[in-house]
Amino acid sequence: MKKIGVALLGLGTVGGGTYRILKQMKEDIMRTDGVEIEVLHVLERDIEKAKALGVDPAIVSTDINNVINNPDIKIVAEFFGGIEPARSFLIASLKAGKSIVTANKEMFAKCRDDLEVAAKEGNAGLYFEASCVGGVPIIRTLQAGMQGNRIQSIMGIVNGTTNYILTKMSDEGLEYADVLKEAQRLGYAEANPSADVDGFDSMYKLSILSSLCFHKRIPLDKIYREGISKISKIDIDAGKSFGYTLKLLAIGKKVNGKIEARVHPTFIKNDNPIASVKGSFNAVLLNGDNVGDIMLYGRGAGDLPTGSAIVSDIVYAAVQSEHKLSYVAPTTDEDFNTDFESEYYVRMSVKDIAGVLAKITTAFGKYGVSINSVQQNASEGVASVTFMIHNTRESAINKAIAEIKSLESVNTVDALIRVL
Amino acid sequence: MKKIGVALLGLGTVGGGTYRILKQMKEDIMRTDGVEIEVLHVLERDIEKAKALGVDPAIVSTDINNVINNPDIKIVAEFFGGIEPARSFLIASLKAGKSIVTANKEMFAKCRDDLEVAAKEGNAGLYFEASCVGGVPIIRTLQAGMQGNRIQSIMGIVNGTTNYILTKMSDEGLEYADVLKEAQRLGYAEANPSADVDGFDSMYKLSILSSLCFHKRIPLDKIYREGISKISKIDIDAGKSFGYTLKLLAIGKKVNGKIEARVHPTFIKNDNPIASVKGSFNAVLLNGDNVGDIMLYGRGAGDLPTGSAIVSDIVYAAVQSEHKLSYVAPTTDEDFNTDFESEYYVRMSVKDIAGVLAKITTAFGKYGVSINSVQQNASEGVASVTFMIHNTRESAINKAIAEIKSLESVNTVDALIRVL
Repeated sequence: MKKIGVALLGLGTVGGGTYRILKQMKEDIMRTDGVEIEVLHVLERDIEKAKALGVDPAIVSTDINNVINNPDIKIVAEFFGGIEPARSFLIASLKAGKSIVTANKEMFAKCRDDLEVAAKEGNAGLYFEASCVGGVPIIRTLQAGMQGNRIQSIMGIVNGTTNYILTKMSDEGLEYADVLKEAQRLGYAEANPSADVDGFDSMYKLSILSSLCFHKRIPLDKIYREGISKISKIDIDAGKSFGYTLKLLAIGKKVNGKIEARVHPTFIKNDNPIASVKGSFNAVLLNGDNVGDIMLYGRGAGDLPTGSAIVSDIVYAAVQSEHKLSYVAPTTDEDFNTDFESEYYVRMSVKDIAGVLAKITTAFGKYGVSINSVQQNASEGVASVTFMIHNTRESAINKAIAEIKSLESVNTVDALIRVL
Repeated sequence: MKKIGVALLGLGTVGGGTYRILKQMKEDIMRTDGVEIEVLHVLERDIEKAKALGVDPAIVSTDINNVINNPDIKIVAEFFGGIEPARSFLIASLKAGKSIVTANKEMFAKCRDDLEVAAKEGNAGLYFEASCVGGVPIIRTLQAGMQGNRIQSIMGIVNGTTNYILTKMSDEGLEYADVLKEAQRLGYAEANPSADVDGFDSMYKLSILSSLCFHKRIPLDKIYREGISKISKIDIDAGKSFGYTLKLLAIGKKVNGKIEARVHPTFIKNDNPIASVKGSFNAVLLNGDNVGDIMLYGRGAGDLPTGSAIVSDIVYAAVQSEHKLSYVAPTTDEDFNTDFESEYYVRMSVKDIAGVLAKITTAFGKYGVSINSVQQNASEGVASVTFMIHNTRESAINKAIAEIKSLESVNTVDALIRVL
């Protein structure tokens, strides 16, 4: 039987999960896939962590050369996170002819070009199923299941932390700050939650996923990004009354031949299948011109779900007789539309005096922004006004909002949320 | 560039859809997958159908030898449906070293052993993504995305016709016979609807899917099968009042090391993600020991969704340097549990006289069948009684129901529906 040596770089949550699954599934994988996967080296500073998992200390070190120089190691799985040393170690591995497996979306989204050059040089493969939506086989689906389609759009809840927070806010009527604090206490959110709540994590994943959808590079600076930290319970409740659920969506779509890529809080209709994706679950909805809508749903994070994707990639890489890189064409500014169209929900606080609404609607009208409905609640000289806005360009509504903010009778514009 | 010749056997709905997609996507597939797919022969009696699709009449015939004897044809995609001549033509193709692609679940489920023998002889591959859940890449997921898991269960809505009928009954309060008639008029159900409504189609798909989940053969005679033709609107409404949706489910699961495989109408809780799968959409929920729950959702039928899966298989087969067969171990009776456990909903019509309920509950008790709740509505000497039954074995409830049916005070047992 074919034997394939593997190195694990790091034994953190996912690295440890991966080691456990490889041990547990060893015989199964030999039987079903005809390959014996052997962990030949582990890079880990904490020898006790390795011992606790049952790793032979003799194969644990902190020197990447023990991996690079071992010809029996054919696959290197990385669990460091962050850019360095992950990037350098993986590039060296690829150049040495070892395929790499990674869950590191930030590094992969930022350094993919370099990795591809090294992979070509070493005739090795890049496997990154675990980088997006944990154990859900979305990468395999895009690479090996959609060849009969031009993907028109991808729309995903790809970050479990923010979906947990928004679900709690919606189901229990809590405010953002309170739920975040609880999520941090439970370990669902980091002490510095920015990567999740500001949408960076979703942006990296969208860059990777939409590059496979459209077969084009999607640079991070072409992705509009907005997080959930300004979301208020008032807005979630208002959305509910209109039949909407608020989700942090990663959206990639083709409109008139141009690509739009954006991450932002979005009101989606309750009958959309991803509206009911709750808690830390993730989901991705694809629309292909032939297959129509398909959705994949599952856990986006965690030691075993993500470890499951890593092990799938290790086995998949192990049985390939040659490694192919995904075709991803270069792009220029011309390939993207950044002034995208959307419907909007707008909430503002205004002085409760005559003529305010006329001034606001005039400002909207000046930029061609058309109002679908308006609701006003006044108390003690202050009115809260909520507008639903028809489809409009970003540039138009932004200009209108800037002008409205400058009106003396407008206190604050508190919410500007896209509606799908 | 690698050129791969393909033959299409039949140009019906899916065959025609496949031809259109191959034409439309030819350049895309060359660019992204590095292979040129050429249709070199089409088996079709109706030359006008071929012409309407733009197929060169010179490559259309009714003689399978034109396929078998053409060494440039490497892949044969079959769209006949039914067992013969599909089976013979595909076996001959495999023996001649041509990989096969099929959407024919009945033939594949019944003749897989023969196909595998021929595939080994010809060193060719079996590709059957399109046989289950149309364009949704469930086969690819099970073969190449779940290597890090032992699948514990699969639960699917895998037949669009029955899901359309049950959705209509539920949403519009209609009776089965009326919805079926309308579905037949609209072309959503066949003139002879038995394959769909009696659960045969779901059974074939469950045999194929659960064999990949459990890496074991699931013979059709080990699958319990029950259709939807006896479902009444009364029961759907009763289920709703308990928070359940009624679906025809295909269920495969491992319980204490034994496999259970069954197709039957099932009440599922509304918060189960597959409860909200409506109309002709399909969905499959997998539970893996490491990944947890994942769900795939999409269109299960239609020329382009199914054609999309066929084209995916053609391209996937075309880029393989060697074809591997899925590992599926043989099974004996010992591998299966056919006396499975379930909760139940039972509705019966009884004479509205004293002591009836005591007799019924005594009969249930005699076989250890435990009642969770009971509702009774009486009018004009007849009472309708509905029981919710705690988890019980099939054998126990069947004996109890047989005894209850023989009671003089019981008119009829009208519904016996499993609850998940």
